[in-house]
Amino acid sequence: MWSFISTWAFSSQAAEAGAELLKSGGRAMDAVIEGIHRVESNPEVDCVGRGGFLNEKGELALDAAVMDGDTLKTGAVCAVRGFEHPVDIARALMDKTRHNILVGEGAEEFARKMGIPESAMEDLITETARENWRKAAGIGHDTIGAIALDEHGSMAVATSTSGANMKLCGRVGDSPIIGSGFYAESGVGGACATGWGEDIMRTCCSFRCVSLMAAGMSPEEAVTTVVRTAHETIVRHGGKPDCIALVCMNAKGECAAACNHREFSYAYIKEGMDAPLVLEKEPVLDKDAGNTFIDGVAGYER
Amino acid sequence: MWSFISTWAFSSQAAEAGAELLKSGGRAMDAVIEGIHRVESNPEVDCVGRGGFLNEKGELALDAAVMDGDTLKTGAVCAVRGFEHPVDIARALMDKTRHNILVGEGAEEFARKMGIPESAMEDLITETARENWRKAAGIGHDTIGAIALDEHGSMAVATSTSGANMKLCGRVGDSPIIGSGFYAESGVGGACATGWGEDIMRTCCSFRCVSLMAAGMSPEEAVTTVVRTAHETIVRHGGKPDCIALVCMNAKGECAAACNHREFSYAYIKEGMDAPLVLEKEPVLDKDAGNTFIDGVAGYER
Repeated sequence: MWSFISTWAFSSQAAEAGAELLKSGGRAMDAVIEGIHRVESNPEVDCVGRGGFLNEKGELALDAAVMDGDTLKTGAVCAVRGFEHPVDIARALMDKTRHNILVGEGAEEFARKMGIPESAMEDLITETARENWRKAAGIGHDTIGAIALDEHGSMAVATSTSGANMKLCGRVGDSPIIGSGFYAESGVGGACATGWGEDIMRTCCSFRCVSLMAAGMSPEEAVTTVVRTAHETIVRHGGKPDCIALVCMNAKGECAAACNHREFSYAYIKEGMDAPLVLEKEPVLDKDAGNTFIDGVAGYER
Repeated sequence: MWSFISTWAFSSQAAEAGAELLKSGGRAMDAVIEGIHRVESNPEVDCVGRGGFLNEKGELALDAAVMDGDTLKTGAVCAVRGFEHPVDIARALMDKTRHNILVGEGAEEFARKMGIPESAMEDLITETARENWRKAAGIGHDTIGAIALDEHGSMAVATSTSGANMKLCGRVGDSPIIGSGFYAESGVGGACATGWGEDIMRTCCSFRCVSLMAAGMSPEEAVTTVVRTAHETIVRHGGKPDCIALVCMNAKGECAAACNHREFSYAYIKEGMDAPLVLEKEPVLDKDAGNTFIDGVAGYER
C-alpha cells in the first residue's frame, strides 16, 4: 500500500507526480522530491520556489528540508538564494555529508560544489512577487510539505518554502527545522506543517504528531491533538496563536490533517485511487478552552 | 527555590554568575544570559564565543539561542560572524520581533540595528583556535547550555556554541534548534543538549526530555530515557551514534544529566549551596540492546 499527502490545494500536482512514481514501485524519498519539484517550478504558487514571496530586501531566499524515515537522516537548507530547487540541496546534504543543516552562503557554495543547477535570482522572481513586495503586502507564508509511504514500507517527508512575505533578511520559519516543520520514521509515521512557523515551532508540532502515533493514536487523533494542544499551549502562555496546520500519515498509509484556521486544504492519494483528492479542513475547536479561531488565513504583521 | 544547571565543567563560571543573580531574586532569563556571557568571553573555552572553533574557511561563525519558559518565545541565531555574544542577538530577536530564527548576514545586520557590540572577527580568534584550524584537528564540538529556575517559578534556557571544528561553512548543529538543542516550559521543565548535533536532532532530544517530565517522569528518568532512546533509535535505523549528552531540570528545580559517552561533566547549583558542584556522568548503558559505548569524546570526522 503506497500513500501520499501534501499541504494545500496547489500541491495536487505534487501528489500526482509522487503517485506516478509510487505506483510503479518508486521510493518514498523520490516521490516527495519529485512532487516538490513541480511546485518549486510553478511560478503561480506564491510561497514556494520560483515565484515565491520576497524578503524585506526584495530577495528570494528559500528554505527546504528532507527526512528519510528509514535512516532518520535529514538535510535542510535555510535562506538560499539563486536556486530553483532548494530541496535538491537539502537532499545532497543528507546523502553526501554528515551534516543536517546549512544556511545562507554556505548552502549556496555547497550546492555549486554538488553541481546543482543555479539560476540568476532575478529569473526566479515573478512580476506578481515583485508587485507583492512593492506593495509590502503582508499576505502569506505557506509551505509545500509532502509525506510518502512506498510499497517497501519506507516513509519520507520533504518541505519547501519562500517563507513569509517581506520577512526579515535571514529569517527562517519552521519548514527546515526538524521536529517542528517535519518528521518521519518508517514503521511509525510522518508529519509536516504549514502556517506561521514561529507558532508551529513553539511546541515542536511535527515530532509531537509522530510521537503520538508511536504511542498508539490514529493519524486523526494525533494531528487533531497536536494542533489543539499547540494552540491552547500558546494561549496558556499569554500568546495569540497565528495559523497552525499539519498533515500526517501513519505506517499503514492512513492520512489526516488538522488546522486552527479556516481555508486549509490538502491533497491526498493512495493505492487504488485514480487522482488526488483535494480536501478542505474545518478548524479544530475546543469550545471549553474558550478559544476563538481565526477566520481565513491570518495576514503577516511585522 | 532557585536552581541552575549547565553543560561541561567549564560552565561552573556560568553557574556562579547565574547563581549570583538568582540568589538576589533575579530572573531565570537574566541568569542564563549572564552565565553564558562569561563563557562566551572566556578565550580558554575552545567551543564557545571568543576562542571558539573555526569553520573550514578559518572563520568564527557562532550559533546561540534562548527560550523563555513563561511565554514559550524563543530567539536563535545561526552562523553569526563578528559578535562575541551571539546569545544577545538571540535574546533581542525574541524580545523585539515576532521571529524566532535569523541566519548569517541577516542576523548580523539585525544585531547592528539593535546596537549589539560588534568586534572584528579576527579579534575573537585565539592563537589556539587558529592552530587547531591549521592542523585541521578534528577534536571538538561542544556547547554551553544553561537552564535556570528563579524564585518566581520562571524557567529559561540558553545555548551558545562555535559548532564543530572545521565544520562546513554555514553548518548548523542542534544548539540553535528548538526542541533539539533546547526547550523549556515554566511549570514543567527545561532541557538542553551538547554533543554531535546531527545525532541530537534525529530524535528532538530536548523537547522529548521536557515532554517526559510533563508526563510525570523525574528529571533522572526523563534524561536517561531520552539519551538511551536517542542512541538506540539511531542504531535501530542503521546509524552509529556519536556523542549525545543532556542536562535537564523540572519545575521544582531538581536536576539531572545523562550521556552516551565518557567524560561528560556539568555544573549545578541551587538555593542553599555555596558554590556550584561539578560532576561527571557515566554513560547510560543498556547492555540488552547490545550497544557499545564511545570511550572519551568522539572526534569530528567529515
